Amino acid sequence: MDAYLADLSFGAEKGTAGLDEAMRYSLLAGGKRIRPVLALATAEALGRDPDEVMPLAAAIEMVHTYSLIHDDLPAMDDDELRRGKPTCHVAFGEDVAILAGDGLFAEALGLALTCQQGDPVRVLAAARELTVAAGVGGMVGGQYLDVTAPEELDPAGLRRLHELKTGRLIAAAVGCVLLLCGPGGPATLHLGRFAEELGVLFQIVDDILDVTGHETELGKPSGSDARHGKRTYVSVFGLDRARELANDSHAAARAALGQAGGSTERLEQIADYILTRQT
Amino acid sequence: MDAYLADLSFGAEKGTAGLDEAMRYSLLAGGKRIRPVLALATAEALGRDPDEVMPLAAAIEMVHTYSLIHDDLPAMDDDELRRGKPTCHVAFGEDVAILAGDGLFAEALGLALTCQQGDPVRVLAAARELTVAAGVGGMVGGQYLDVTAPEELDPAGLRRLHELKTGRLIAAAVGCVLLLCGPGGPATLHLGRFAEELGVLFQIVDDILDVTGHETELGKPSGSDARHGKRTYVSVFGLDRARELANDSHAAARAALGQAGGSTERLEQIADYILTRQT
Repeated sequence: MDAYLADLSFGAEKGTAGLDEAMRYSLLAGGKRIRPVLALATAEALGRDPDEVMPLAAAIEMVHTYSLIHDDLPAMDDDELRRGKPTCHVAFGEDVAILAGDGLFAEALGLALTCQQGDPVRVLAAARELTVAAGVGGMVGGQYLDVTAPEELDPAGLRRLHELKTGRLIAAAVGCVLLLCGPGGPATLHLGRFAEELGVLFQIVDDILDVTGHETELGKPSGSDARHGKRTYVSVFGLDRARELANDSHAAARAALGQAGGSTERLEQIADYILTRQT
Repeated sequence: MDAYLADLSFGAEKGTAGLDEAMRYSLLAGGKRIRPVLALATAEALGRDPDEVMPLAAAIEMVHTYSLIHDDLPAMDDDELRRGKPTCHVAFGEDVAILAGDGLFAEALGLALTCQQGDPVRVLAAARELTVAAGVGGMVGGQYLDVTAPEELDPAGLRRLHELKTGRLIAAAVGCVLLLCGPGGPATLHLGRFAEELGVLFQIVDDILDVTGHETELGKPSGSDARHGKRTYVSVFGLDRARELANDSHAAARAALGQAGGSTERLEQIADYILTRQT
């Protein structure tokens, strides 16, 4: 995955090498690559060669990176550190960071629409799923709720916020591949349910780690959610209950996988990793 | 066109009505709609019902609106007035404006991929063209050149900047429709050349109007390019030579149309309008 991403270049236009540098700076900052790895593992679960979905997987990671760049901006979360490095706007300036995010989004969709092989009707459906996960009904809507929601948010509101902001794109990492090369039927249904649950699990663990994690491991200041007045699973439910919820969510995800059938070993490993990760 | 845009709604998600409001505020601020009208007129030139390409045309206008919102941001051009109204970030805050832009981009591509009818291979190609025009090889790259270019820019550099920033999306308004329902062959070639020239013409006239236009007609302070230290056709060539260049460009666009054949009356009118417009 990382080799494929490292080979991408956005600087073909004369004079835009600096923009390419900012885009690649954030894209290659060493994230966990959970979304693209999920996409590849989903292809494997369906009995396909994971390399077949590489452009789509890379596109999903680029969309994720774009959202991080914009979320970190001074007008948004105003974060200066991400994955242990200065955030994009700190390194390249706010104007270039906004454009680096915009550029990654455009190039992500361009990559999926240009390089992803497959039945055109299915490629269209997969790309459409990516825009839905990124749009008002997903990432952008979730971030809007995050910057505008009242300090006191009820548990349902909290779940909804994270479902949109984080969950939809994680689910889309599975969903896009199902649309591209899924067989339909019950297996698709169960894998879809797995993906949704995984998005929830990811966020609960993220909130726990923000409280319990070490700054050097997280690559960002720990406790930053609390300082930003963010509503998290820990602030709403407390640490112990949040851990229970994480275990419940993990069990539900594994159960859905069990019902799906197919070569789901890699997907199981990803679910386990998301539950037990320390960063 | 305006009725179609006014019917779009992005507020289906609970709690995101404010985001929908910001997106529609900018989308329905009464722009000239040159890009979507171009797309409809291109369909007409090809002997098709313009309504057939409405989703694609609307998507192009949404991408244009998103770029205006981001260009106006304090970290970019820092403009407070657009089309005679407060810019999006002045009306809704900087965070919401960034998200409104992001959301319009995602929903634009979603609209094209979901609602545009036609051969799936051609819909894919049209959507891809839109991402190219919006990406590093287009709008985003051009805006990057604009915020980073030296004060002194040679004529070739100036033309290149505007080609990317403005020209590519105007050309894509024609190009996307050619890809969606064009017959191929010489007519497609000539219409493509028309579209490229139109992008140049549009920018030259824009630069002239910034100097000669009245604030009330422009909907933004006149002379704002000069105050921002922007390189324009007028600052590089002087007003008289810029007017000559505009006439040359218009003649070249009309000549390309003449060679294309088909029902190009509407496209001719658009070229004439772009040359003679006062706002």
